[in-house]
Amino acid sequence: MSLNSFGHLFRVTTWGESHGPALGATVDGCPPGVAVDEAMIQHWLDKRKPGTSKYTTQRREADEVEILSGVFEGQTTGTPVQLMIRNTDQRSKDYGDIAEKFRPGHADITYWQKYGIRDYRGGGRSSARETAARVAAGGLARAALKSLLPNVEITGYLTQIGPHKIDRERFDWAEIGNNVFWSPDAIAAGEWADYMDALRKSGNSVGAAVEVVARGVPAGLGAPVYGKIDTDLAAAMMSINAVKGVEIGEGMAAAELTGEENADEIFMGNDGNPVYSSNHAGGILGGISTGQDLVVRFAVKPTSSILKPRQTITKSGQSAEIITKGRHDPCVGIRAVPVAEAMMACVILDHVLLHRGQIGGAAGETRGKIG
Amino acid sequence: MSLNSFGHLFRVTTWGESHGPALGATVDGCPPGVAVDEAMIQHWLDKRKPGTSKYTTQRREADEVEILSGVFEGQTTGTPVQLMIRNTDQRSKDYGDIAEKFRPGHADITYWQKYGIRDYRGGGRSSARETAARVAAGGLARAALKSLLPNVEITGYLTQIGPHKIDRERFDWAEIGNNVFWSPDAIAAGEWADYMDALRKSGNSVGAAVEVVARGVPAGLGAPVYGKIDTDLAAAMMSINAVKGVEIGEGMAAAELTGEENADEIFMGNDGNPVYSSNHAGGILGGISTGQDLVVRFAVKPTSSILKPRQTITKSGQSAEIITKGRHDPCVGIRAVPVAEAMMACVILDHVLLHRGQIGGAAGETRGKIG
Amino acid sequence: MSLNSFGHLFRVTTWGESHGPALGATVDGCPPGVAVDEAMIQHWLDKRKPGTSKYTTQRREADEVEILSGVFEGQTTGTPVQLMIRNTDQRSKDYGDIAEKFRPGHADITYWQKYGIRDYRGGGRSSARETAARVAAGGLARAALKSLLPNVEITGYLTQIGPHKIDRERFDWAEIGNNVFWSPDAIAAGEWADYMDALRKSGNSVGAAVEVVARGVPAGLGAPVYGKIDTDLAAAMMSINAVKGVEIGEGMAAAELTGEENADEIFMGNDGNPVYSSNHAGGILGGISTGQDLVVRFAVKPTSSILKPRQTITKSGQSAEIITKGRHDPCVGIRAVPVAEAMMACVILDHVLLHRGQIGGAAGETRGKIG
Amino acid sequence: MSLNSFGHLFRVTTWGESHGPALGATVDGCPPGVAVDEAMIQHWLDKRKPGTSKYTTQRREADEVEILSGVFEGQTTGTPVQLMIRNTDQRSKDYGDIAEKFRPGHADITYWQKYGIRDYRGGGRSSARETAARVAAGGLARAALKSLLPNVEITGYLTQIGPHKIDRERFDWAEIGNNVFWSPDAIAAGEWADYMDALRKSGNSVGAAVEVVARGVPAGLGAPVYGKIDTDLAAAMMSINAVKGVEIGEGMAAAELTGEENADEIFMGNDGNPVYSSNHAGGILGGISTGQDLVVRFAVKPTSSILKPRQTITKSGQSAEIITKGRHDPCVGIRAVPVAEAMMACVILDHVLLHRGQIGGAAGETRGKIG
Repeated sequence: MSLNSFGHLFRVTTWGESHGPALGATVDGCPPGVAVDEAMIQHWLDKRKPGTSKYTTQRREADEVEILSGVFEGQTTGTPVQLMIRNTDQRSKDYGDIAEKFRPGHADITYWQKYGIRDYRGGGRSSARETAARVAAGGLARAALKSLLPNVEITGYLTQIGPHKIDRERFDWAEIGNNVFWSPDAIAAGEWADYMDALRKSGNSVGAAVEVVARGVPAGLGAPVYGKIDTDLAAAMMSINAVKGVEIGEGMAAAELTGEENADEIFMGNDGNPVYSSNHAGGILGGISTGQDLVVRFAVKPTSSILKPRQTITKSGQSAEIITKGRHDPCVGIRAVPVAEAMMACVILDHVLLHRGQIGGAAGETRGKIG
Repeated sequence: MSLNSFGHLFRVTTWGESHGPALGATVDGCPPGVAVDEAMIQHWLDKRKPGTSKYTTQRREADEVEILSGVFEGQTTGTPVQLMIRNTDQRSKDYGDIAEKFRPGHADITYWQKYGIRDYRGGGRSSARETAARVAAGGLARAALKSLLPNVEITGYLTQIGPHKIDRERFDWAEIGNNVFWSPDAIAAGEWADYMDALRKSGNSVGAAVEVVARGVPAGLGAPVYGKIDTDLAAAMMSINAVKGVEIGEGMAAAELTGEENADEIFMGNDGNPVYSSNHAGGILGGISTGQDLVVRFAVKPTSSILKPRQTITKSGQSAEIITKGRHDPCVGIRAVPVAEAMMACVILDHVLLHRGQIGGAAGETRGKIG
Repeated sequence: MSLNSFGHLFRVTTWGESHGPALGATVDGCPPGVAVDEAMIQHWLDKRKPGTSKYTTQRREADEVEILSGVFEGQTTGTPVQLMIRNTDQRSKDYGDIAEKFRPGHADITYWQKYGIRDYRGGGRSSARETAARVAAGGLARAALKSLLPNVEITGYLTQIGPHKIDRERFDWAEIGNNVFWSPDAIAAGEWADYMDALRKSGNSVGAAVEVVARGVPAGLGAPVYGKIDTDLAAAMMSINAVKGVEIGEGMAAAELTGEENADEIFMGNDGNPVYSSNHAGGILGGISTGQDLVVRFAVKPTSSILKPRQTITKSGQSAEIITKGRHDPCVGIRAVPVAEAMMACVILDHVLLHRGQIGGAAGETRGKIG
Repeated sequence: MSLNSFGHLFRVTTWGESHGPALGATVDGCPPGVAVDEAMIQHWLDKRKPGTSKYTTQRREADEVEILSGVFEGQTTGTPVQLMIRNTDQRSKDYGDIAEKFRPGHADITYWQKYGIRDYRGGGRSSARETAARVAAGGLARAALKSLLPNVEITGYLTQIGPHKIDRERFDWAEIGNNVFWSPDAIAAGEWADYMDALRKSGNSVGAAVEVVARGVPAGLGAPVYGKIDTDLAAAMMSINAVKGVEIGEGMAAAELTGEENADEIFMGNDGNPVYSSNHAGGILGGISTGQDLVVRFAVKPTSSILKPRQTITKSGQSAEIITKGRHDPCVGIRAVPVAEAMMACVILDHVLLHRGQIGGAAGETRGKIG
């Protein structure tokens, strides 16, 4: 039982602090024979990398991944894969000012209370830098999924920044990669740019909502009642820094629906598989995937490190005012997109392996047939 | 790794189906010396029991718990506690009609696809009856918390049924036990009664939102980055039948806030502990409890077993119309309240034990001091 | 992480005390579709049952198993299987005498020290009665193995009681079921009967050695480096009451061999699989099964409850002499045979499921081919 | 559930292959505030380092450890500790000759069968080089034990090489560090030197027996019935490369003893704690430590890589003769001593943390008092 690990059979343990020499992911349980190299993992890390637009932290990290074990001649061997990323731009001096004061909304006070250690260097283990290790592990999970279930596609995007939401009528998959906000709605992306420009000038930050969709996921994944695929997705997303809410399909709005409205009607599709009239369920019934799109949504709170003065206390219990300079993301939700995709890739792969263990057969094969 | 288990050190494994001979919880890791007997656990089961009002299922289950192990002369021994509940009112014949058809919105189709076994008797393992075992385990967790941290109080209540929400201005802790909806707002309870009466007549069902608050929780509980207390709470709540969204503190609304609005300012309290100006964080920063109230909220979708006709398919792939008679909860969210309280009790106790293991000292003691 | 559980995917949690109302095994992860009923499990319990000869405890327990969950219409459903055995012959009064004194060589002193609870009734949780639950779980594992790998045969037998060992030259599989000692050597069985008769009269007890062999196990099972199949077998056997040593293949005698003597030479068999000139390895290389017989051996210490007076102390720290009356096994090793078989069945099934999860394909299929 | 991890709360995951760029241990669950630096861990690695005498492999590895995370300003922070060791002397060409042939007694055939990947470079993951990571993790465990239980002393030594055993009458703790065999008997060390010189010349290898003793371990550690401290020690030792048998206290010899002989009589000591007349139990009763010395013994088989020609097969199924050149330990048991000490340190620390979690209080405090 490691509390820095997640996953059942595809087990990822992340390690490392914001300003230590390195961070990484120790991944155990990756099947053998998966074609993977550093470039394939780097591809996803580059998507998360800081400093790619003026809306993310200006910290400059190359985020170059090294595969230290578990891969031989371009294939996984079935043994643990160590994915290491060296930290290169740790300007610890930026943080000297806040070594004594706790930032409101930040984990530094609770880490201090729990551990009695104050690693003031950029948040230490609580920093969002830890998510680079998740993205690396997710890159490996994607490579494995590609060989086991080549039709699975995992795509994340922002649906909301502060008061501005996307318009679902304008949703366009192709647009997502065209703007720095991973917005599926070009007009919303423009609104966000304006909003964020004003916000940055004022030294403030803002929350966001992220949605991740996995298409091509077979029916049958998930293990009731505490290894449900939605349970694992909720845990995976909630474990990401700053996340305060997680929804599957209808999410919190399910509270408003009647049974008649909510139940997705079932028909037979042309390929002999069930099709559904709608997807209120977000692709999951009873904790098991239905074969529809898996739809997960979550909210990220605004970064607590801001230039606006806030009241706080020091380690010695004195009242103080705090302004956090450093280099911070004004909307940490933007960089949460690739992180959430990575978490979803890990959860799906994990459940493919579990399903295979419990049921047998090829990846994605179910035991019960319809028709 | 059991997929029907949750918790790290206080480890609960539930077992049993809706219409089997019995169901229960195997609880490992309860500390020794906890005063507990069947009556103490029965108290909580009675709160969840079916048939207590016209708004819940009319199935008649005594839900009497037997302690089969782990308790000797009124105290836990430190060995596994087996909590068993016999099923007594399994009218399987009610379900004969739906043995071939899949209910839209119900887990019977995914269980069939995954396992190739159709336990049509009342949903088998996917039935909300499984939650009786959770409530029993939660009763044990509460007994242990009572001896370790007597100030912890865990209270759940409904905040929304369908379109009707409580008014936070009218929130009254004392009201919660006065109505069959666990509503902290007497006026909302009245609206819900009217709404539910109409709904029941029409053979429909409806969703709900539940909030659970734990007061008196010490700072320092939670183990970043994948054993965060919010991660474990999110998983615990999402694992409850029909839950589609989970929120901590501000929850999904955090997407709308600025950093200035969201960050709870910190002051020193008279007792030498930090106090906060607000609780947007829901009592958790960086996955660790702050000492404020822990606030969790979740949405429950409407029961899928309704009298309204819906389109579906049969096991052999034929189109069919379905109406589910049986005896079902028109708003399963009502009975989710004691279940959610139980899950929260288990998560808190688990983290008290983990914290004690990692840090040492008495329950709730932190390592870092302020002031 | 439950400390009363073992197994990775086939996860067995035992619960219950010697003199509580019941004991049992909660088994999670059994694949769906396994044909099983109470009679199939009872078969193995009857083999372990007390009172079957004058060389085992005279306690009279029916040891009747009830399947409370996870089986529907004669097949496992893929959900947790609860196997419960009611205790019926708990003569607690026999133990009144020793409620204050600690038995030398018995766990009652360490349980007291650890838990501060004295369940003096027959050893409580530390009693060998707990092993009935293991045998029940093993019966389920055997049923699952029968459907997945019908050629696997698991057989245990005694190889030594006190100073008397079997003669390997006289080894006869067919003899094992013919005597009350599970001896593969009829002559040794006769010696043991004489030896045990004298021992019983003197009120003494004696140790024993047990060997378990699994034939028909495919190559490829085991997950280096901490889920090796020999690691899991060592843990499984050492966890049985009174076991003090575990050996694989050559075991402790490997210390004496040279590399030339020890290395089993490899040839191609007629069926296209490797064959080995010998089996010093006990069927395991690098923690992975070779396809040869799995051979595990272990020593059981003599029962500590004897009629011979021994020096001890009381709970209040006073010196005392102790004689244990009760009804005890003079050689607990005899009844360890079916227990060890059960543990081996569980470990093999568990690794079949793990292998299937990691590698895919049918049970026992390997990824690397030879030839 | 990672199969390359061990420990419950102090959780060690090792990673890396013999000839990859690096190997290491990801350690989660180390308590905060432990004073540790690279030199303290290096101390133990130097003890295991290859090439320190003519009786171990001549591979030249500096085995320099880097702490990449979890330590800040000379103290552990409570977050994962990454211990990395770069491989520097990977002469892969030595192994070219055996890329196609399987070594009798070696894991290369089973790894191939299981994974379908042939990492012929020095045994890949199955190499004893993996144990360097264990020693590093053990160094951290020792540092933590030093702060929690300063009286614990863990010492390993050889008791047998091939046919030559130590004489227990000559046992001398002080002698252990004086010879290259970690022998507590100077005369045996001399015999071993002569024996090994002859063996090396003949190109053969030999087995050995190792004993590890932990003194100063408090009563109460261990969690029945599957997290017993002897169960965990058996698993820990059996997981070490080439180990074929594990014994606690009397070990396999317990089969020969009567109850009267075996039961260690109990008295009250001057310090108010129980003392025992003997230690047949090896310091463990019912899976829980008694406060006596913990005594574990295990046998290591001879290295399979020898210069003696042996019959084998190739990957394509052809018969072949094999001689393994490379640089191998003629008696791998010698270097197993520091590895076993490391494993014992990890197991003891893990159980200290578990005990503290379940019982509370200071490290080593028990709940039940005597007297």
